[in-house]
Amino acid sequence: MYRPEIKVVDCTIRDGGLTNNSNFDAETVRAVFKAACASGVDYVELGYRNSREMFDENEYGPWRFCDEDQLKAVTDGVDRQGAKLAVMMDAHKSSVEDLAPRDESVVDMIRVATYVKDVDKAIHIAKDAHAKGYETTLNIMAISNEGGMFLNEALQQIEEETNALAVYVVDSFGALYSEEVHFYVETFRMYLKTKEVGVHMHNNQQLAFANTVEGIIKGANYLDGTLYGLGRGAGNCPTELLLGFLKNPKFDLLPLLEVISKHILQLQRAIDWGYHVPYLLTGVRNMHPQIAIEWMNSPRKDDLPAFYKKLEVEFE
Amino acid sequence: MYRPEIKVVDCTIRDGGLTNNSNFDAETVRAVFKAACASGVDYVELGYRNSREMFDENEYGPWRFCDEDQLKAVTDGVDRQGAKLAVMMDAHKSSVEDLAPRDESVVDMIRVATYVKDVDKAIHIAKDAHAKGYETTLNIMAISNEGGMFLNEALQQIEEETNALAVYVVDSFGALYSEEVHFYVETFRMYLKTKEVGVHMHNNQQLAFANTVEGIIKGANYLDGTLYGLGRGAGNCPTELLLGFLKNPKFDLLPLLEVISKHILQLQRAIDWGYHVPYLLTGVRNMHPQIAIEWMNSPRKDDLPAFYKKLEVEFE
Repeated sequence: MYRPEIKVVDCTIRDGGLTNNSNFDAETVRAVFKAACASGVDYVELGYRNSREMFDENEYGPWRFCDEDQLKAVTDGVDRQGAKLAVMMDAHKSSVEDLAPRDESVVDMIRVATYVKDVDKAIHIAKDAHAKGYETTLNIMAISNEGGMFLNEALQQIEEETNALAVYVVDSFGALYSEEVHFYVETFRMYLKTKEVGVHMHNNQQLAFANTVEGIIKGANYLDGTLYGLGRGAGNCPTELLLGFLKNPKFDLLPLLEVISKHILQLQRAIDWGYHVPYLLTGVRNMHPQIAIEWMNSPRKDDLPAFYKKLEVEFE
Repeated sequence: MYRPEIKVVDCTIRDGGLTNNSNFDAETVRAVFKAACASGVDYVELGYRNSREMFDENEYGPWRFCDEDQLKAVTDGVDRQGAKLAVMMDAHKSSVEDLAPRDESVVDMIRVATYVKDVDKAIHIAKDAHAKGYETTLNIMAISNEGGMFLNEALQQIEEETNALAVYVVDSFGALYSEEVHFYVETFRMYLKTKEVGVHMHNNQQLAFANTVEGIIKGANYLDGTLYGLGRGAGNCPTELLLGFLKNPKFDLLPLLEVISKHILQLQRAIDWGYHVPYLLTGVRNMHPQIAIEWMNSPRKDDLPAFYKKLEVEFE
């Protein structure tokens, strides 16, 4: 009944770090890592390995850089139960110099996030990481802006030039409907003969989990989720919904519910991610969520007609 | 690009009335009615026409009974702009004696909610309402418990014996995934040669909007939504998401955003419907949400592992 090839990646701390400049305390990170390992997910992503030249250490917390000693402090002694540790490198915000050889690191997988336009940078990083001994993926962001010749060329190039295990459809704007997910996953599979396809969805239109399932139906085998959907703006596909859907008996929901109860619900009260109309309005227009996030942080956040008119007037 | 046959039913006040014993103040009901009419939706459902023998007037507000004078008070003088007024009668909780002839009523459509087992009662009410001059639909609840011989017989009987305009797939438990929505809509269409199919979805697994879209893809033309998803437990398909998806230029989101800003966000702070893990846990188990609603109203609401274990121990 289940598909054993499917790999679940919990990226609560990495993607959730976009809500708080990656400023989680070590206790929370350790608790999430431990729970995710115990739940049977395949990868746990604990942050970005991004460059200090792009991000100021005084503004961003440790999980934007994921130094090895920080990672060791939250993972040492945890029974990983087969789960692997991932970090993300933004193609345009990170440097191969920050990556030590695999045998000097606690990290197993490097996920390289990129826009189509930066695919050469991303391939450079992915090849370097592979040469250093890491597993790799490429995660193509803002996919709802792509779909033509440049995407196809990028996929062909990734197929030919890298050893990535998977290439992700990333719906950064929460703009996709199910038929578009089908289109992207089918397109990726057509070009990526030797690699898996992944899906990373956002919840602006309450479709993150639904679109992940649509990806599965079309053959995507790498699936991203975050606990309770923690993430910027409307958030992500909730890992607990995803495990509830997948029928692989290796998954156990209970450790995730424990860490949600103890850590994530508190964060929710402070950060308030999830469905709000401004995120719907940027999603349906295929816009970056930043303007909606700023609106939600302003005193006018509940004046929805004003935000709607702002988009109509300023962006059309 | 759009399908002109599609009818949108906003049932904010009717379905939302399950969160507060139908105790909305008249100002809110009038504002919702006015906004829904202005938005271009086809039907606005303002409550139940249920029996005082089943519901105590001291406990339930006016929108559980929808007396004609109450309906007149909130609709008189509103420019309906083509929108029709609907009320719901539960097959097992209402009486044909409570229904006056159409020309003595402000109501246009009677929607009869039923379980498969009560389909004869529902047909009796729907025929009576049709004979009195109303449009009718039949709404088959708890559909995720059905799918075999009895459902097929009920659909055949409705097809032969009633003049219902549409018959609804109602996912009362928020249990369905997209492929099951496809199955139900296709089954309904096979039996209902002369009627439309409707979909009414719940959001336990964040799939209410997604499943409504899947219904559309398979040919469902009657679509239910509520403003901001207002509804019992995890709530419903948000009408504003639905109009954002549908491309018919007759729809206008702005009046809905105004009434959400002025009335619905306040209700949200008091009622707190929407995605919470206990609703996911009953949805994924295909259970009635009542036990999750009680948990969410208890002091232990954030103890998710305890609720999970309760379901494991007491319901397996």
